[in-house]
Amino acid sequence: MRTSLCDKLGIEHPIIGFTPSEHVAAAISRAGGLGVLGCVRFNDAADLAKVLDWMDENTGGKPYGVDVVMPAKIPTEGAAVDLGKLIPPGHKDFVERTLQRLGVPPIGGETRAGVLGWLHSVARSHVDVALEHPVKLIANALGSPPVDIIEQAHDHGVLVAALAGKAEHARSHVANGVDIVVAQGYEAGGHTGEIATMVLVPEIVDAVDVPVLAAGGIGSGRQVAAAMALGADGVWMGSYWLTTAEYTESLGESAMQQALLGATSSDTVRTRIYTGKPARLLKTKWTEAWTADDAPEPLPMPLQNLLVAEAHNRIQQANDPAVVSMPVGQIVGRMSEIRPVAEVMATLLKETEETLARLRAL
Amino acid sequence: MRTSLCDKLGIEHPIIGFTPSEHVAAAISRAGGLGVLGCVRFNDAADLAKVLDWMDENTGGKPYGVDVVMPAKIPTEGAAVDLGKLIPPGHKDFVERTLQRLGVPPIGGETRAGVLGWLHSVARSHVDVALEHPVKLIANALGSPPVDIIEQAHDHGVLVAALAGKAEHARSHVANGVDIVVAQGYEAGGHTGEIATMVLVPEIVDAVDVPVLAAGGIGSGRQVAAAMALGADGVWMGSYWLTTAEYTESLGESAMQQALLGATSSDTVRTRIYTGKPARLLKTKWTEAWTADDAPEPLPMPLQNLLVAEAHNRIQQANDPAVVSMPVGQIVGRMSEIRPVAEVMATLLKETEETLARLRAL
Repeated sequence: MRTSLCDKLGIEHPIIGFTPSEHVAAAISRAGGLGVLGCVRFNDAADLAKVLDWMDENTGGKPYGVDVVMPAKIPTEGAAVDLGKLIPPGHKDFVERTLQRLGVPPIGGETRAGVLGWLHSVARSHVDVALEHPVKLIANALGSPPVDIIEQAHDHGVLVAALAGKAEHARSHVANGVDIVVAQGYEAGGHTGEIATMVLVPEIVDAVDVPVLAAGGIGSGRQVAAAMALGADGVWMGSYWLTTAEYTESLGESAMQQALLGATSSDTVRTRIYTGKPARLLKTKWTEAWTADDAPEPLPMPLQNLLVAEAHNRIQQANDPAVVSMPVGQIVGRMSEIRPVAEVMATLLKETEETLARLRAL
Repeated sequence: MRTSLCDKLGIEHPIIGFTPSEHVAAAISRAGGLGVLGCVRFNDAADLAKVLDWMDENTGGKPYGVDVVMPAKIPTEGAAVDLGKLIPPGHKDFVERTLQRLGVPPIGGETRAGVLGWLHSVARSHVDVALEHPVKLIANALGSPPVDIIEQAHDHGVLVAALAGKAEHARSHVANGVDIVVAQGYEAGGHTGEIATMVLVPEIVDAVDVPVLAAGGIGSGRQVAAAMALGADGVWMGSYWLTTAEYTESLGESAMQQALLGATSSDTVRTRIYTGKPARLLKTKWTEAWTADDAPEPLPMPLQNLLVAEAHNRIQQANDPAVVSMPVGQIVGRMSEIRPVAEVMATLLKETEETLARLRAL
């Protein structure tokens, strides 16, 4: 299975894998897809630079990309400490009360800073670092990045992808200069709109004249083939790599993976509690707490993520499968074992070929 | 494109069309699909009998089916008038106040009864009538019908289909004797669950050993081919026939069709206001009114439908495209012109073949 996207990105299979783990990203690229490393976790651009150096040595010369989180409109922002003043005390009280009730202890020793990658200045530093490396693609999780960023990428010969949950957003991204649109359906993990992949992908394919990646609900070759039937030039998969062996290698064994392995497709929820914008998360005691009568309304981006940043660190350290804060799509129901990326990719490709053969026989 | 389902149902194309209009149903069957007539609007079984007599004369000898609305557990029920006593006065006040505010006048002349097809006894009378006609399929919108109904259908050589929004429900339907499962994704019109078609269809295909129809988000050949890629044996389409010429013929020109033609895929909402269970409707001033601060929580089934039954009649008579109460899926964004069923079917089949040819070339 080859599409025009394979030539455009210099890859063997039109399977793009988003992941926060460099070990997973490198393995996806080595397996013939395009590994796209999520940068939001790097508060310090120097840390990202080191990791991209590592990528350069471990992708076997295969292309890879990075993913940043950047709104098209540059917001007014201060340092995290100034923004923190905008968070109502009642919200902080609720978070603290909830963590105590759920048995999540405070962090011992030094307090780590929250995730700052949601801040525009930090995301911009990610782009600067990425462009000093041989990246093939910069993807932006929040749609079109600012036009100067797109121009900067193009000056370096780097393609720009942007997520879209509506056809009108996709049109606007392409008008800004975006090269590839990721049609992210309702069932996807992380930031999603209301329109499901089955409806969204053909709408976006019809709306723009650039390659479209189908995202949301893809974790088997049947779903890859369905995405191609819908008119996509490839697929964008995020959730499905969270239960790979390389993910464990990169970020340690975790209650999070255990929780994902046990979840069904009904065990996710679309909520604003992660970043302030609707994003699909694993449904756990943490997400349920935010639906209780005493829960406040989530704050707008970027305040909500600042509010819960330390909570996320505490939750991660507590390592309890029942209290996890993790973006994941409905495909989590198909994530039932830890496997190496190469095996996941081989299975995907094999089932895609089997599906295409079955369709040929219709 | 033929599947085992074609032989099972004696049809040419694995396209099953649900519709409340006998003109549409007959046209779908004549075009080589299976027209399935929704029975919920027939308060009097004798009216259904007349319409099925008409179907027998107008399907050109091709197979057709019927769709009833029947919970597996037989509820305690009284006449509509008794149930009406269970409706809180505050709810009635809200409905009346809202209709006045939206400019929907009272019905002139005799008040028609609300839709009673949601009542178990009425749905049972639909089955009795249907089995006196040469129907090929009885589908149940609320999942598995009671086991005695399934046995009664089988005794008449009639297959039973049931809608499912989760794999566990599909397994339970098949254990009860259901012959065909309709995997109804989140994006579908009418009653839906949370799981999108892309994820739901392969889950249900893997869970049961009977034919599965994909429902939700299907209105183009690309989507038909995607459904087949996901492992479905055919598709179940409901919304897409609402803008056919035969629908107008059957139920009159309407503001409803105008509203559908102007809607995008973002213009639907999943809400309990239609029947008491979550169902996807066209988003209009009527559905928005139920999200306002003064709106009460919808009542459970069957009370909610009794509450809004007269309102539905009034809304229909007022014929205002801005105030419509109509189940429809996200595919409404692709419904942009009134066309005859035969033309819709021909376009679907042509695009499906084109898509399969494109996939062959991958």
